[in-house]
Amino acid sequence: MAIITLTTDFGEKDHFVGAVKGAIYTELEDVKIVDISHSIAPFHLHEASYIIQSAYKSFPKGTIHIIGVDSELNPENKHIAVLLDDHYFICADNGIISMLIAEIRPEKIVEINIHDRIISNFPVLDVFVKVAGHIARGGTLDVIGKVTTEIKEMTGIRPVVNRNGSQIIGNIIYIDNYGNAISNISKKLFEQVGRGRDFIIAARSIKITKINANYSDAINFDLPADRREEGGKKLALWNSSNYLELAIYKSNPSTVGGASSLIGLGFRDSFTVNFVSDAL
Amino acid sequence: MAIITLTTDFGEKDHFVGAVKGAIYTELEDVKIVDISHSIAPFHLHEASYIIQSAYKSFPKGTIHIIGVDSELNPENKHIAVLLDDHYFICADNGIISMLIAEIRPEKIVEINIHDRIISNFPVLDVFVKVAGHIARGGTLDVIGKVTTEIKEMTGIRPVVNRNGSQIIGNIIYIDNYGNAISNISKKLFEQVGRGRDFIIAARSIKITKINANYSDAINFDLPADRREEGGKKLALWNSSNYLELAIYKSNPSTVGGASSLIGLGFRDSFTVNFVSDAL
Amino acid sequence: MAIITLTTDFGEKDHFVGAVKGAIYTELEDVKIVDISHSIAPFHLHEASYIIQSAYKSFPKGTIHIIGVDSELNPENKHIAVLLDDHYFICADNGIISMLIAEIRPEKIVEINIHDRIISNFPVLDVFVKVAGHIARGGTLDVIGKVTTEIKEMTGIRPVVNRNGSQIIGNIIYIDNYGNAISNISKKLFEQVGRGRDFIIAARSIKITKINANYSDAINFDLPADRREEGGKKLALWNSSNYLELAIYKSNPSTVGGASSLIGLGFRDSFTVNFVSDAL
Repeated sequence: MAIITLTTDFGEKDHFVGAVKGAIYTELEDVKIVDISHSIAPFHLHEASYIIQSAYKSFPKGTIHIIGVDSELNPENKHIAVLLDDHYFICADNGIISMLIAEIRPEKIVEINIHDRIISNFPVLDVFVKVAGHIARGGTLDVIGKVTTEIKEMTGIRPVVNRNGSQIIGNIIYIDNYGNAISNISKKLFEQVGRGRDFIIAARSIKITKINANYSDAINFDLPADRREEGGKKLALWNSSNYLELAIYKSNPSTVGGASSLIGLGFRDSFTVNFVSDAL
Repeated sequence: MAIITLTTDFGEKDHFVGAVKGAIYTELEDVKIVDISHSIAPFHLHEASYIIQSAYKSFPKGTIHIIGVDSELNPENKHIAVLLDDHYFICADNGIISMLIAEIRPEKIVEINIHDRIISNFPVLDVFVKVAGHIARGGTLDVIGKVTTEIKEMTGIRPVVNRNGSQIIGNIIYIDNYGNAISNISKKLFEQVGRGRDFIIAARSIKITKINANYSDAINFDLPADRREEGGKKLALWNSSNYLELAIYKSNPSTVGGASSLIGLGFRDSFTVNFVSDAL
Repeated sequence: MAIITLTTDFGEKDHFVGAVKGAIYTELEDVKIVDISHSIAPFHLHEASYIIQSAYKSFPKGTIHIIGVDSELNPENKHIAVLLDDHYFICADNGIISMLIAEIRPEKIVEINIHDRIISNFPVLDVFVKVAGHIARGGTLDVIGKVTTEIKEMTGIRPVVNRNGSQIIGNIIYIDNYGNAISNISKKLFEQVGRGRDFIIAARSIKITKINANYSDAINFDLPADRREEGGKKLALWNSSNYLELAIYKSNPSTVGGASSLIGLGFRDSFTVNFVSDAL
């Protein structure tokens, strides 16, 4: 049975998500629909890109991912369908799958051309669902679009490495539900540049010299509870998407605050990782 | 396999929605449950009415729609089940399906009378799910209720047309996730009254003389990007539910604002459409 | 077909919920996944405990409930699987199922020990889904864990009854979507202590001497609408989870306020029920 996921900026309140699901069930009787997120900030391509990249890998091969963010068709916003890592992505060519493509080369990209008779201001409902139905029934991408190799890329998602490889300047690309600040520095890049050297992560006034494997690693459970300094403990870790995350132990952004507010890092803000020189 | 949709004001946090789904799966093993919205403002019949009307048409014929807003049984709030446009609606008789009924005549309305042994302050769980189960198993409405023809109507949802047909006074009935303001003026009414004449939409200090088919229509893509005045561009369009919507191009109500805040139009606020007289 | 429910503090926006569902569908092709809540306040064990207890009973026997709140494995936070009332619960041993266990004795508790090769900061995805898959395929708890009888209990969830049985001091354990304040006083305890006597519920400056079966009971529908004092009417009732709830008739916390704000009762706040002495 086909699986279709939805990642949109439609919000939780409006009828849009329900209508799209109704259209999918009208198109396909036997299908599983999974919400990834409908709370992407309106038109926020970076958020959508991070979320779809982090979520898709947990799904079985062959899953069809509809991304409904900034998807209205216009001369500068084509509709595309992409086969990548054995998953299908249906979205606008607005850079939204840049983070996916930066990592993995697409097997096929087509520019969707089934619009001839569809004029719509709700393309997820009227176009993307049709394309998803076609793929779910075993159809090939060539039937619903023209093969292309060009695809738009977002700017500002790649960290900068200085010339001698002693520094990475990263940017915050996402603030999660716990207020933790996720950067664009992947574990892979960090290890390539760092080659096992010691390092100092400097973000605003905070300095961190260790990256944990999980949140609890920051706490010394051998100490009695009142001497562990759990509250508000700042830490860095490789998050479950393998990006460098600046976090607070057990944070709650609506009460004590999260890493984003406590360290003072918002979307796009930069910070540095400085690697200590090898021995002279 | 039956499809049951849920439209409620239960919110995303409480256990209510989960409990209702559990009860549905206890009642019916083979069923698809689809959330339309659980973020209707508490007891907000107009919002619920707009959302269910906008969503239901995308579902296959025969779908069962449970509406859980202001649904406690009391002497002035009966429970009803309605067959309309080949869809089933289960709700309280509180005006919530007025917008549906204003457009399409119901095939059958019954006042639900299976309460004899059910005393409950959670009627969606205890009554509506039972009714939905009955319908999903192929039961008829007559078995679970008494046929009636009367049904309550909400006030304030119909626009006013002046005597000589030169003006429509519309009201905002819904603010969507993008901050766009949706009115009660349907495309059908507009075309009946306007008969192709030119018009001026006047909302607060804004005047608009064109209604777009989609958002991008408001932008001239022949101009270079920096001369297109995309940012904050105000526009009117027929939305995907075929109501007149006052919108901002690519708006985000939590950052730059949406049409509702920028134009200054909230729920129930009125605005006018004036049609230009035919030639003398 | 197995049913797996999810109760987490992951929020509605991040990729976590979608990723977990993807992992479940990778593990099990034929399964129903139901969201109970993803909006538990971060790390809020009491909220999670109330919500799972209130929701689980509506599901069919054999349902598997994953609770993803404060679930990172560390020396003080083991992972457990519990069979109770013919339902399965998979969670951390952090007190989160205290409210369940206070009412019903577990049939079996195991400490999960399949972590040998799983090092993770996303245990719901990497561990709980595996355990759920094992149970859904008919596996026994003994295979994935070591039987134990000890389990952590949360403090502050039990109401206090005074020595002569004339008073119960209750606490607010949850504020619902309508702003209603739900206490830890169950109908069962109330009836045991009260033995049918008259009583006065005193919460801040409010005194209530009747507990309704439903919200509408507080309104006298024999009076004409303008003399019923519906607006802001304060009342007590047994909610659908059989806890004593302090409520406002048709409240909306984001406009007129709810019981919590109007009476001035927040999470953990206490109030009293005083029973009137029997005749001398």
